[in-house]
Amino acid sequence: MKIKAYGIKEEGGKAEPFYYERSVGENEVRIKILYCSIARGDVQFISNDWGDTKYPLVPGHEIVGTVEETGSGVTALKAGDLVGVGYQQEACFACECCKAGNEQFCTQQKVIGVHCYGGLAEHIVVDNRFAFKLSPALHSAKSVPLLSSGLTVYTGIVKAQLPANSVVGVLGAGGLGQLAIQFLHKMGHKVYAFSHSLEKKEMINQLGAEFILSSSPGNLSELDKKFDFIISTLNVEYDLDAFLKILKPQGKFCVVASPLKKQSISIGLLYDYAQRTIYGNYVGSRKDMVEMLDFAARHNIESMVDVMSFSEMNEAIEKVRTGEVKIRLVLKNQE
Amino acid sequence: MKIKAYGIKEEGGKAEPFYYERSVGENEVRIKILYCSIARGDVQFISNDWGDTKYPLVPGHEIVGTVEETGSGVTALKAGDLVGVGYQQEACFACECCKAGNEQFCTQQKVIGVHCYGGLAEHIVVDNRFAFKLSPALHSAKSVPLLSSGLTVYTGIVKAQLPANSVVGVLGAGGLGQLAIQFLHKMGHKVYAFSHSLEKKEMINQLGAEFILSSSPGNLSELDKKFDFIISTLNVEYDLDAFLKILKPQGKFCVVASPLKKQSISIGLLYDYAQRTIYGNYVGSRKDMVEMLDFAARHNIESMVDVMSFSEMNEAIEKVRTGEVKIRLVLKNQE
Repeated sequence: MKIKAYGIKEEGGKAEPFYYERSVGENEVRIKILYCSIARGDVQFISNDWGDTKYPLVPGHEIVGTVEETGSGVTALKAGDLVGVGYQQEACFACECCKAGNEQFCTQQKVIGVHCYGGLAEHIVVDNRFAFKLSPALHSAKSVPLLSSGLTVYTGIVKAQLPANSVVGVLGAGGLGQLAIQFLHKMGHKVYAFSHSLEKKEMINQLGAEFILSSSPGNLSELDKKFDFIISTLNVEYDLDAFLKILKPQGKFCVVASPLKKQSISIGLLYDYAQRTIYGNYVGSRKDMVEMLDFAARHNIESMVDVMSFSEMNEAIEKVRTGEVKIRLVLKNQE
Repeated sequence: MKIKAYGIKEEGGKAEPFYYERSVGENEVRIKILYCSIARGDVQFISNDWGDTKYPLVPGHEIVGTVEETGSGVTALKAGDLVGVGYQQEACFACECCKAGNEQFCTQQKVIGVHCYGGLAEHIVVDNRFAFKLSPALHSAKSVPLLSSGLTVYTGIVKAQLPANSVVGVLGAGGLGQLAIQFLHKMGHKVYAFSHSLEKKEMINQLGAEFILSSSPGNLSELDKKFDFIISTLNVEYDLDAFLKILKPQGKFCVVASPLKKQSISIGLLYDYAQRTIYGNYVGSRKDMVEMLDFAARHNIESMVDVMSFSEMNEAIEKVRTGEVKIRLVLKNQE
């Protein structure tokens, strides 16, 4: 079938109608797209910030839609099912990582919007194992960012295996940080969110965290060795050492984003009278996705989003690029 | 009792007889010292390299000796027992860390040679819970470095919870590295040791590892995503990013030493298509010590040591300072 998408044909170009041919394979499903988010990462990729973008590019990797057609081998889904898709179109399901249930590390995987055309389109075809049934509770634009941002922070948190009632910190209160605060709060932990923006205090409190102004000197030293866990969603430079110091001796620091530049670190803070850990997390497995969607549905975890229509996609991309939109942006397909 | 020790009275001073009064408390034991090591860290502390040395100082925190006297509350040890002591003289046994069995993180602990007089002495008094009975298999100068270096690398390795038959790397083949190679080899893993010194190849092979010349460009990129685990014992600057890249997606990097200067790191390597971990390890718990000593005795794990006598202590300190001695140095008390 000929799929109508919205592609960027060259660096600096605008999204415009772009058609490609794609049939539905044995294990695949075709989805009619209802929502697709545009995130900062998409816009950086559109702008070729990392120098490896291949054009034409169809961005978008947080997608909600309904199944239209299923391949002959698909039994888990049927036409009409509401599904979410995030990040992966396919994986090999044969390598060491896939066999261990970690398809997110498969070297043969196709990442949506990077290795194949993405969700800024009328339809998309993906392996049925990467289309996740959505509870009716998640049928709204506010759930769209769960599919990649939500998965990333949820999996990063779960990996820490936190004891109940831990003291935890969230660095940054943007799209990732707002979701991390909610997950941690609903898991019952005592949550502190660090932000440079005093105007985010009320929002942070509403999401379930205490606000700490991270630009205020002295604030951090008072918190010495207080935290079991910190998750950093920051993509700007920050003083990593200062945050390592406020971790308890066996505390864990999870990074799900980072500045493009190298960071500097005093390695001694990891072992001196301590056994501290820094680890990264990259999206999550299919099992993590199912767990995360279930947790989010049961606890009403949603993103704060601005909704625009597909017809406004170029204005939307520009708003994300300039930082004019402070919360997550989701495009609704009204065709 | 008046204890005869060997103290350094001022920065740049030599070790000379120094007496202090110390009785044996209810839970303590007094030990007649047979062996005490002098390590690089001791010499750095003697030289006040970190700027926080308090004089007079009695160095030495890897000690083997026999119990001479026990306090009224001690039942686990009796006079004549052969024991090892490493790093800790006492802890509070009441704080959150101690109650969790992690006395090594107790903020009230006394570290031997730092917060109290150390093992370069005729006797030492310690809490009986920090004097560990030694198997006769460990009664030699070659076992002395197990008590701190051995504990540090063993605990760092165990913390990784490696699956059987892992591919592992050891950075540096000095005192810590040589022990790490042996532990990992005897645990059944496939061990590679990275060193800048071609002349260490034969020794590394004998200890159970393949040698990789880390200064040879190109060697590392061939090893891309090959390793489950790497332990760094380096205290000189190295390219941390290069070693993160050769870890598998869920690979772990343990640091038990580091250069004094900050290191730089591309944080993205921790999460980009991966979920990599860096963690530090600081000595170990009492449980780790008992396990480590048992493992070392069963598998004949020993340090390569030069043995000198207590009467040569100042020459010994000088040899460690100048780097003239390439293996661990242990002093034998012949009084």
